Amino acid sequence: MSTPAVDDFREYLLALQQGVCDKVESYESGTRFVCERLVGERGGLAQPRVLSGGDVFERAAVNFSHSSGDRLSSAATARRPDLVGLSYQAVSLSLIMHPRNPYVPTTHMNLRLFVAGQGDAARWWFGGGFDLTPYYGFDVDAIHWHQTARTAVEPFGEDHYPTMKAACDRYFFLPHRGEPRGIGGLFFDDFNDGDFEGCRALVQSVGDAFSAAYFPIVDRRKAQSYGDEQRAFQQVRRGRYVEFNLLQDRGTLYGLQAGARVESVLASMPPSVSWSYCREEKPGSKEAELYERFLVPRDWANLSD
Amino acid sequence: MSTPAVDDFREYLLALQQGVCDKVESYESGTRFVCERLVGERGGLAQPRVLSGGDVFERAAVNFSHSSGDRLSSAATARRPDLVGLSYQAVSLSLIMHPRNPYVPTTHMNLRLFVAGQGDAARWWFGGGFDLTPYYGFDVDAIHWHQTARTAVEPFGEDHYPTMKAACDRYFFLPHRGEPRGIGGLFFDDFNDGDFEGCRALVQSVGDAFSAAYFPIVDRRKAQSYGDEQRAFQQVRRGRYVEFNLLQDRGTLYGLQAGARVESVLASMPPSVSWSYCREEKPGSKEAELYERFLVPRDWANLSD
Repeated sequence: MSTPAVDDFREYLLALQQGVCDKVESYESGTRFVCERLVGERGGLAQPRVLSGGDVFERAAVNFSHSSGDRLSSAATARRPDLVGLSYQAVSLSLIMHPRNPYVPTTHMNLRLFVAGQGDAARWWFGGGFDLTPYYGFDVDAIHWHQTARTAVEPFGEDHYPTMKAACDRYFFLPHRGEPRGIGGLFFDDFNDGDFEGCRALVQSVGDAFSAAYFPIVDRRKAQSYGDEQRAFQQVRRGRYVEFNLLQDRGTLYGLQAGARVESVLASMPPSVSWSYCREEKPGSKEAELYERFLVPRDWANLSD
Repeated sequence: MSTPAVDDFREYLLALQQGVCDKVESYESGTRFVCERLVGERGGLAQPRVLSGGDVFERAAVNFSHSSGDRLSSAATARRPDLVGLSYQAVSLSLIMHPRNPYVPTTHMNLRLFVAGQGDAARWWFGGGFDLTPYYGFDVDAIHWHQTARTAVEPFGEDHYPTMKAACDRYFFLPHRGEPRGIGGLFFDDFNDGDFEGCRALVQSVGDAFSAAYFPIVDRRKAQSYGDEQRAFQQVRRGRYVEFNLLQDRGTLYGLQAGARVESVLASMPPSVSWSYCREEKPGSKEAELYERFLVPRDWANLSD
């Protein structure tokens, strides 16, 4: 594995960031991303892009970062003593969309590559995936989301979709509530089958599929009219998102502990959130249906709408 | 130390719960606490009381619990192997107030007693304290708060106030932001100087002082007129409260990990919260003053207003 291979993936992520931001801005009449370019030591680069207060997207964060160092710290290698003292590079794109309309789901994607050491002896692995968190469930959206996810990874091996789908259901789960965060999607970590270019192709296929998976759902739901009740339910459900991010999410917790820029790490937080006490949904309501029909692991890709 | 001594403290906490709830309801025209009484095995009792949507208090939670068991689990005694296998009792009152008016500060108090084993060989310790989290700072309020705190604990020894004040400043701190949660107050843990009745008297003195410390500030600020700007700042600052509770607070994290009733543990969460991106306060504003003058450790009890 060569440094140019890392550079290629970095360029891919930067182009993907630009493409997703352009697409998000195309929904907004005047609201634009705040773009920053924070250059660090040794060619490190953090490039957070955050949009707030849009008509369609109340918040969208699409953050790129590239960091590197001469020596992995012992803290970073607690579970991997074989990597102590190696140099490293990490490139990552992390995005989150909090739409205003409660009928439009929240989504999250992360794509990352970690390389320890250099040249032929380098160790590397990819991680990431994308997942969807609807406030109101629609079969057609859930099926489209999962079928697009399956299409992205199936060409690289039949096992990938079921494996990554199951890993996503496991990871995006709130143990204190016994509740999935959303309807899942794809999740992979420590992803390395020995073939760097093959793995990179799969990860880029996931990145390429994101827009096709998400924006048709935005298009279908963004003009659906809603009232205070739907907005209140969205605010409460966003509370679950906060709980997951601050209690469970490895990236968030690692970022905060490692002293990353707080505003970048917490750009994933929803713009407004509520907590209720002992709220119960009316039997037969769309709110109750979310819990009963959507916040349960389901093989959406094999259902037909 | 006798079981009657635990019972006395339990009765004290139950009476304090009733007194504080009555006081809170006296501010509200129609809103009342939702009171539950959840009886567990072996005489355990959880008695959460939560008020939502009041005119003065947007949320108030005043939760009592008493739990006991035949054998402390090894997880519970990870740091105290000497206690493995002992029976235990824990009684606790935990309260939080989220006022609607941004000029009224949020407050939190916890008083608890833990007993391991029985009879003369029993091990016991108290924990708790109270702290204040203003959105807008007023010297007169901060001085009153800390002087009342000092008056509560000083009769039991001169060192208590400075020790508990410093512990409070250390505990209620957000390391990822390098920011105190509020202006502090009193904090103590593993509190046992060998004299159970003496310790109990101090802890009850703290409990007795709470109303005298907090409600005069509510009275002074509750009618102060505010606008959207103040409300928006309160919502953002409440985000820090959420960050502290979900990232740092031992009681919250322990409760969620130990499988406590989620709605009771998270009754401390603010009813509505915002996260902004890279918000900066205008130099010279009241909002900037909060950070510069109040969110810094300061010896308020020795200032005069």
